[in-house]
Amino acid sequence: MRYLIYLKYIGTSYCGWQVQNNALSVQTVVQDAVEKVFCHRPDIKGCSRTDSGVHANMYCAHFDSEKEIPPRSVVLGMNIHLPDDVAVFDCKIVDDDFHARYSCIEKEYIYLIHHSSYRDPFIEGRAYRRYGELDVDKLNEAAQYFCGTHDFSAFCSAGAKEGDKTRTVKYASVIKDGDMVIFKVCADGFLYNMVRIMAGTLLKVAEGKINPKDIPAIIESKDRSKAGGTAPAVGLYLNEVRYSSLDE
Amino acid sequence: MRYLIYLKYIGTSYCGWQVQNNALSVQTVVQDAVEKVFCHRPDIKGCSRTDSGVHANMYCAHFDSEKEIPPRSVVLGMNIHLPDDVAVFDCKIVDDDFHARYSCIEKEYIYLIHHSSYRDPFIEGRAYRRYGELDVDKLNEAAQYFCGTHDFSAFCSAGAKEGDKTRTVKYASVIKDGDMVIFKVCADGFLYNMVRIMAGTLLKVAEGKINPKDIPAIIESKDRSKAGGTAPAVGLYLNEVRYSSLDE
Repeated sequence: MRYLIYLKYIGTSYCGWQVQNNALSVQTVVQDAVEKVFCHRPDIKGCSRTDSGVHANMYCAHFDSEKEIPPRSVVLGMNIHLPDDVAVFDCKIVDDDFHARYSCIEKEYIYLIHHSSYRDPFIEGRAYRRYGELDVDKLNEAAQYFCGTHDFSAFCSAGAKEGDKTRTVKYASVIKDGDMVIFKVCADGFLYNMVRIMAGTLLKVAEGKINPKDIPAIIESKDRSKAGGTAPAVGLYLNEVRYSSLDE
Repeated sequence: MRYLIYLKYIGTSYCGWQVQNNALSVQTVVQDAVEKVFCHRPDIKGCSRTDSGVHANMYCAHFDSEKEIPPRSVVLGMNIHLPDDVAVFDCKIVDDDFHARYSCIEKEYIYLIHHSSYRDPFIEGRAYRRYGELDVDKLNEAAQYFCGTHDFSAFCSAGAKEGDKTRTVKYASVIKDGDMVIFKVCADGFLYNMVRIMAGTLLKVAEGKINPKDIPAIIESKDRSKAGGTAPAVGLYLNEVRYSSLDE
C-alpha cells in the first residue's frame, strides 16, 4: 500500500530534501525513520526538491510498503526516530496511482522578512532580517504582477533543466504582521529558485531600484539579469501542498 | 555612568541568569560581551534570577563603567560578541541610583502551552506541549482568582528564602492564539517558581482536578501541596520588565 506523509522541518542543518553525497538531506533522515518503523527501506518520493536551508511548514512525500500500519502509528513511530528539527504531523493511505510530486495541483510558499534593526534570537535562522524602507503596500502592488500564466524564465536560476518555463501563479501577496513582512505566493509549479528570485525582486522594489510597474516587462524579457537577486534561503518556507485527489 | 541593557534570550542552553559553578549562565555570556566592548569586566546586576531553561523576551540588567560609549554602539558591539541565542535590543544611560532589580515596579511573564498532538519542530523547546482538554474560558476564569494582593506561599517552591510572601498580581489572563494557549500574568514581584506553579495549577484546572472556584482557598491555605505541580521551564518567558523612573 501507498503511504502519504506530511512533514514539517527546519531546513538549517540540511542540504535540502534530496539525498546528496557528503551532505545530510531531509530525505535521508525521513528514510531512516521509515525504515525503523517498517523494517525495510522503501524509496521515498518527495513533492519537490527544496534547497539547502529552506524550511517546510508542510512537505509531502509518499512511499510503498506491503506492511499495513495504522496511519496514526506511523506518525507516532516515525516521530520517535526523527531528529528534533523534523516531524511528521499526518499520514494517509492513498491510491496506488497517487504521486507526491505529480498529483500535486498547487503549492504555496511564504518568504519571511524580519524588519528589525537588531538580531532576535527567537527569529534568527527562521527569517531573513533586513532593516530599512519596506513599504508593504508597494511590495504588495508589485506582487500582484506575478499573478497569471507567464513564462517565468526571468525568475529561474541558471543551471535549471531545459523545458517549458510557463507557470500559473494563482495568488501572491505581501502583508505585515508585527515586525514580520510576509510574501505569500501560490502556483501550479515553481521553477528553480523562483520564489527566492521573486523575493529578491521585491527587495529591489523596496529599495526603489525597481518600480512595481516594471515587473511585467521583467517577466516578458525572460532575462534573469533583469530581475532582483536570489534572496537567502533562510526566509523561505514551503507552506502548503495541495492535491485534488484527496478529500480534505 | 550606569548603563541599562535590554536582552532577549532562548534559555534552553543556560542554567538561568545567575552565574553558577560548572554551568553556563546568561550572566556570564553577557558579562563576556560587555568586557569585549568596554575593555573591563563590571559586575552586572540583573532584574531577576531566572531558572534554568526559562526564556526572556525582555530581560533588563545594569552595570557601571567610566567609559562613555553611545548606547547604539553598545547594542551593536555587544551583539557581535554574544552567542546566537542571546541578543541586546536596547541600551539606555540611567541615573546612578537606578537598579535593574530594585527599581522595577512590575514584571510580566507569559507561559506558553502548545496544544497539539504532534511535535512541531518550530515550537519544540519554546513552549510546553500538551494535548487533551484545554478549556480556555475556564482557565481564564481560574486565572482571575490570582489577581489582587495575597500571601502566595502556596505558589512558592520549598527552598525559597524566608520572608514576606505577599505579592500583588495586577492582571492575569489565558487566551488562545491558534494552537497556542497563552497564560499571561503581571505582578509587582514573583516568588520562586510562582508562575510555573500557577501554570501547573491551571493545568490541573484543565484536567478537572481543581475547580476555578477552589483557587482562593488554595491561596488562603498557604500550603504548597494544595496547588498544582511546577510546570516545565520550557514554556516560561519573562515578557516585560517595567520601571516607573524611565520615560518610555
